[in-house]
Amino acid sequence: MEKSALQQARKAYLPKLPEALKGYVKVKEGAPTNSVDNQEEIKKLFPNTYGMPIVEFEPSDVEAGQAMNVGVILSGGQAPGGHNVITGLFDTIKKMNPDNKLYGFILGPGGLVDHKYMEITADFIDDYRNTGGFDMIGSGRTKLEKVEQFEKGIEIVRELGIKALVIIGGDDSNTNACVLAEYYAAKNYGVQVIGCPKTIDGDLKNSQIETSFGFDTATKTYSELIGNIERDCNSARKYWHFIKLMGRSASHIALECALQCQPNICLVSEEIKAKNMTLNQIVENICEVISYRAKQGNNFGVILVPEGLIEFIPSIGKLIEELNDLLAAHGNDYKGLDPVAQREYIMAHLSEENKQTFATLPDNVARQLSLDRDPHGNVQVSLIETEKLLSDMCAAKLAQWKAEGKYTGKFSALHHFFGYEGRCAAPSNFDADYCYALGTSAAHLIANGKTGYMAIVKNTTAPTSEWKAGGVPITMMMNMERRNGEMKPVIRKALVELDGKPFKEFEMQRDHWAKETCYIYPGPIQYWGPSEVCDRPTRTLALEQE
Amino acid sequence: MEKSALQQARKAYLPKLPEALKGYVKVKEGAPTNSVDNQEEIKKLFPNTYGMPIVEFEPSDVEAGQAMNVGVILSGGQAPGGHNVITGLFDTIKKMNPDNKLYGFILGPGGLVDHKYMEITADFIDDYRNTGGFDMIGSGRTKLEKVEQFEKGIEIVRELGIKALVIIGGDDSNTNACVLAEYYAAKNYGVQVIGCPKTIDGDLKNSQIETSFGFDTATKTYSELIGNIERDCNSARKYWHFIKLMGRSASHIALECALQCQPNICLVSEEIKAKNMTLNQIVENICEVISYRAKQGNNFGVILVPEGLIEFIPSIGKLIEELNDLLAAHGNDYKGLDPVAQREYIMAHLSEENKQTFATLPDNVARQLSLDRDPHGNVQVSLIETEKLLSDMCAAKLAQWKAEGKYTGKFSALHHFFGYEGRCAAPSNFDADYCYALGTSAAHLIANGKTGYMAIVKNTTAPTSEWKAGGVPITMMMNMERRNGEMKPVIRKALVELDGKPFKEFEMQRDHWAKETCYIYPGPIQYWGPSEVCDRPTRTLALEQE
Repeated sequence: MEKSALQQARKAYLPKLPEALKGYVKVKEGAPTNSVDNQEEIKKLFPNTYGMPIVEFEPSDVEAGQAMNVGVILSGGQAPGGHNVITGLFDTIKKMNPDNKLYGFILGPGGLVDHKYMEITADFIDDYRNTGGFDMIGSGRTKLEKVEQFEKGIEIVRELGIKALVIIGGDDSNTNACVLAEYYAAKNYGVQVIGCPKTIDGDLKNSQIETSFGFDTATKTYSELIGNIERDCNSARKYWHFIKLMGRSASHIALECALQCQPNICLVSEEIKAKNMTLNQIVENICEVISYRAKQGNNFGVILVPEGLIEFIPSIGKLIEELNDLLAAHGNDYKGLDPVAQREYIMAHLSEENKQTFATLPDNVARQLSLDRDPHGNVQVSLIETEKLLSDMCAAKLAQWKAEGKYTGKFSALHHFFGYEGRCAAPSNFDADYCYALGTSAAHLIANGKTGYMAIVKNTTAPTSEWKAGGVPITMMMNMERRNGEMKPVIRKALVELDGKPFKEFEMQRDHWAKETCYIYPGPIQYWGPSEVCDRPTRTLALEQE
Repeated sequence: MEKSALQQARKAYLPKLPEALKGYVKVKEGAPTNSVDNQEEIKKLFPNTYGMPIVEFEPSDVEAGQAMNVGVILSGGQAPGGHNVITGLFDTIKKMNPDNKLYGFILGPGGLVDHKYMEITADFIDDYRNTGGFDMIGSGRTKLEKVEQFEKGIEIVRELGIKALVIIGGDDSNTNACVLAEYYAAKNYGVQVIGCPKTIDGDLKNSQIETSFGFDTATKTYSELIGNIERDCNSARKYWHFIKLMGRSASHIALECALQCQPNICLVSEEIKAKNMTLNQIVENICEVISYRAKQGNNFGVILVPEGLIEFIPSIGKLIEELNDLLAAHGNDYKGLDPVAQREYIMAHLSEENKQTFATLPDNVARQLSLDRDPHGNVQVSLIETEKLLSDMCAAKLAQWKAEGKYTGKFSALHHFFGYEGRCAAPSNFDADYCYALGTSAAHLIANGKTGYMAIVKNTTAPTSEWKAGGVPITMMMNMERRNGEMKPVIRKALVELDGKPFKEFEMQRDHWAKETCYIYPGPIQYWGPSEVCDRPTRTLALEQE
């Protein structure tokens, strides 16, 4: 593997560990726990893994470590630091006993089911220390949900003498990890399952998990780019940049980038839903800012748009729901029609309220909603180019205002979508340390016989040596939610809280940012250099933990 | 101005200077020079600024510096390091005489004509040291070409007691700087004009200019992103990423990023033109690689596409030329027609050869070529989303091959366009040093009475202390070229040379990169840390100067 100068140099970085994880470790157990909601249902569904205590690691003179093989799985979308979870896990189990083996299942959970794996060796792993990506063993989106999968899994687990599986994933993957832990416990298979909180989206956090790994690096990478665009914008002074940011449902990424870069506008899906705003209201709000700035001679600006926006606009959410139901019920009648007839068919069958919403949409979006469907017949919301939709609608609204004499500026828009640019960036010092500590914690949870736990690291705004490490029962984070028409136990997803400190901070400043030009240019992630540059946590984490 | 931690820390960076520029400076003059071509014509057009010697600065015990005010102008697209040219200029003229003043003309050359300017003071400039962007005084695209503009300029130049103008720009801006120098010299106005080689595109270079500033930082920023996408690509293993890169005509940016990141494919416009390739041939070549990789189970890859590609495809270049002529001649007949009739009109009027090319284009591109035109009636080539055009055509070709049993893979494409993300990045150490030295050289050229010169810095792959600084007569880089139907003296644009070392290196390796996965992940620009990470020059520069 040919390497860049940065890869070479970064390979030598030794992740900093919390004091408690530096040597031998013992477990301190807290009181029994309860799930965040629906305690009775969750307890019934997880009789073997419910109610376990939170555990914290403390330094010890004796090693609980033992001979054990471990399997590791990367699940779902990439997040910077995944490789360091694996290196932390590897180094720790090897320290416990050099004969311990770590197996990586290839291309995600599917590797467990299909028995595709490799042994991770010292030589092999060294090339991946402090690197981004999930290419060490690959990732995948197969969901571990079915008994047949669990049973296929146990075959290879037994064959390799694996004591425990570590599943590195987001909320859904960790929910499934817990279901698997419960199943193996119920069957007395003697195999443990441990989860790790991964996702750049930042929506896997709660009283026990301060942040999911990857959020730090990804938002810093996006903020680098947004800052660069802001500086370009403020130099050329002639474009409005509409920047869509990955992050699925939650707006944490957009909000964090806004706090780092101070753009003129940042839409927050959760607020739009809470205020029951229409698409037209959102566009009018944006146009008010564009118009205000035009009066100051500033025909330029930067707008951040969270990926999940469109589904959070209540009227569009309702429209999409009815469209999905309508076409599920009448898909065959509809499929044979030509595009014009399809549109007429939709207009004829929609409820009055949704028909009105449909009529306000620009042609290309209406077409996308009525034509392009995924294999299950659902609208492909992620294909809607929200950043262009908004700028087109703003252009139309501003033209109307111009005709009415309400606006006299120039409006020229450019579009960007950032996602893939940050998911595999080389982890920041924070993510490199955080992930290595998570992997180390996972090893100790295994050595201490735990299953159905997620590895956690807390106190992460303090210096690394003061971080606290341990584990939390996954059932503790669960509640019951409707998924595909059925009530399921799932880890509660963390959306942006409108009374949380990050949003409050943003809300307090945004009018000023809209009117003035208050851009901040964070620049690229630095691995060496002043600590205030290299080791600062995200604004979200700093505000939430202060 | 609120600042990020990086901005704060980076403010303290002291650009490294070549030995010759550290103290007092004297001029060593070479032999008289000639233009690269059309010597007689250029000499006639520039009687006062033709044939001057190349100058090099040497350390001296005496200061040639004197009392003088200077005006500075940023011209055209942003490039990282522009602010450091100004700080180098500022620090040097202040060192020569603390009463010297530096005036910045606002928003580009237009500021000179419209008398919009500001005095750049010590307090003000400090916030811009080692920063990206042109926001210190703004930039603009007004071309200084007309006598009235020159005469308006001289009014404010006299009012402010300005001895010399420094114009920081690309090839066109420097051509215009020379025309202005010649005009002021011919009129005996006693005002000097000095140019500085700026452009991220990398196409302003020759025997005297090793590289234009900004190319280093911009290509490193794009390479960071491409590397991150490659790592994502290699982790998810299911997408082909089509990445378009800024750079107008020349493919230097794409080629440099290819050398840094080793993607599976990088198109080079200059090669496509030289080989007289059709769009269909380009698509077939790409599909051969996609198909080969699919057979290895690798349904993923990364393709770099230079922005200027479409005009370099000879058949499309010809089509565009005829379309422009056709619609210039018959624009009014054509304008009133509906889209279908417009297309028919075009098909009826095109020559047989171009009609065939037009017929092979996907609908949306044909529509773009026949409908969207700029205010001068020309096709807006930059609006064509080449990255999507290529992936659409590949999808169609692969579907055809699948039907024929020649291909059995899965093809799923994602698209990116990088340009604005890098033009205003904080300058790398290289660009910070290089630009500061250019500004310092400009000050010494002025102090030594030079006009019609561009500031230059050479030997830039050696340690900074060994760099050579001086100036080169702009006429030396000129030849006569047809522009808008007229022969004009212009600086010869440097396209990628197919027998140059960077292309040769790429050519030697690209088959291997296409078949295997040889990605390199350069990571973000580092300002602190190991020198091999922070101070490495671009691959292009290293190969050209080795």
